[in-house]
Amino acid sequence: MAQNIYDRTDFFAFYSQLRRSIDGLDGAVEWPSVRSLLPDVAGLRIVDLGCGFGWFCRWAKEQGAAEVLGLDMSEKMLSRARSWPGAGIRYEVSDLERFELSPTRFDLAYSSLALHYVENLAQLFATVHGALAPGGCFVFSIEHPIYMAPSRPGWSVDAEGRRTWPVDGYLIEGPRTTDWLAKGVVKHHRTLGTTLNLLIRSGFQVEHVEEFCPSDEQIAMRPELVEELDRPMFLLVRGRRSTMLKSA
Amino acid sequence: MAQNIYDRTDFFAFYSQLRRSIDGLDGAVEWPSVRSLLPDVAGLRIVDLGCGFGWFCRWAKEQGAAEVLGLDMSEKMLSRARSWPGAGIRYEVSDLERFELSPTRFDLAYSSLALHYVENLAQLFATVHGALAPGGCFVFSIEHPIYMAPSRPGWSVDAEGRRTWPVDGYLIEGPRTTDWLAKGVVKHHRTLGTTLNLLIRSGFQVEHVEEFCPSDEQIAMRPELVEELDRPMFLLVRGRRSTMLKSA
Repeated sequence: MAQNIYDRTDFFAFYSQLRRSIDGLDGAVEWPSVRSLLPDVAGLRIVDLGCGFGWFCRWAKEQGAAEVLGLDMSEKMLSRARSWPGAGIRYEVSDLERFELSPTRFDLAYSSLALHYVENLAQLFATVHGALAPGGCFVFSIEHPIYMAPSRPGWSVDAEGRRTWPVDGYLIEGPRTTDWLAKGVVKHHRTLGTTLNLLIRSGFQVEHVEEFCPSDEQIAMRPELVEELDRPMFLLVRGRRSTMLKSA
Repeated sequence: MAQNIYDRTDFFAFYSQLRRSIDGLDGAVEWPSVRSLLPDVAGLRIVDLGCGFGWFCRWAKEQGAAEVLGLDMSEKMLSRARSWPGAGIRYEVSDLERFELSPTRFDLAYSSLALHYVENLAQLFATVHGALAPGGCFVFSIEHPIYMAPSRPGWSVDAEGRRTWPVDGYLIEGPRTTDWLAKGVVKHHRTLGTTLNLLIRSGFQVEHVEEFCPSDEQIAMRPELVEELDRPMFLLVRGRRSTMLKSA
């Protein structure tokens, strides 16, 4: 079973105070980029892997999605998600390391910053691929491996004031334990190549790969975002299941 | 026209002394990884973009390639390439910023560490796509953007002896001027996402993305290679032209 940090009191308390927890999608700096990768969701059957407070599920329903299933392993987050009204949205407690979905049941699979907590990504990709109808779309964001790889993930400033991101261990895949919001948070580092190759081998066609970059507008509004130009924090990917079903 | 550093006396002299210039493919640490991405070349019509001394062209011919065309802008390198015998290999002076190839003329396009010198990569990808027969393959290696991005590309060692690669400006695409082998060598930095998206938009299906990692065997033979685990130096990609020709 995956580590369930979101139900730890300390982590949950801190996480609840993040801008993205309070303001929802508009509080997430990468949302405009993610949104541009999404198809028109009107009429679609959608599954959200790691739905958290359910911001995306509600947004999708407001945009006319036919139905939305939100999966998360955190009871606390789902409890808050359920406390907001939203007809046509179903939330289920689910461990992304071992979950099942009905075959060809969805048109869009979505996941925001959850898959780096998953150790067996090959299995998750296979499950998602099987759950999508032919032509179905999979859009996910994940912590960028440049951001996650370092033994000490934090800015380094040299004597001349030059800010750099000190990469090491990039090719050494496996768990990374950090103290983000709480002590001992375990994430799983994979190179960008590994993530894409797993996706391809699961049968997806890679349609778009984006390393998040704030827009000039965003930097003008929040000048501290300029440091995001120095190294990518998020990786955004769109894959598609082939329009043809393989013959059995 | 692209910068022609290889014909500069200083650069050429240094380059000629590199292990990969003397020992050919076996002197290139990434060759086993590149080779594993190649199809069986026997019977194939091949174009090599930036063929240099022609090591790959000769290897491909020895493996039974039907014909090989080597393109390079360096007269000096082609002159040496031509001085070695090799029936069925043709070398042509060509600027990869502006070159033409006959439509659907080749089965495999190959390029080793040349495309980071090319500014207009979209145009090059379009040319290669058009020159491949349906189902044709494009395998290339390029300097990895993590390697190329930094304003000062070199290891940084902190007070505790920890070696890191100081990334900055990763999201700022454009020329990078370095002093590798000679002063003022211009390369063109693009994010990994940009390179892959250009390839996809040119009509290629991305089949494999690899960030070069030396094998345990290679590290045992050359212990200094262990530092390659800290950041990737090369990016290796295989794309494929769809097996179906679009109707006109």
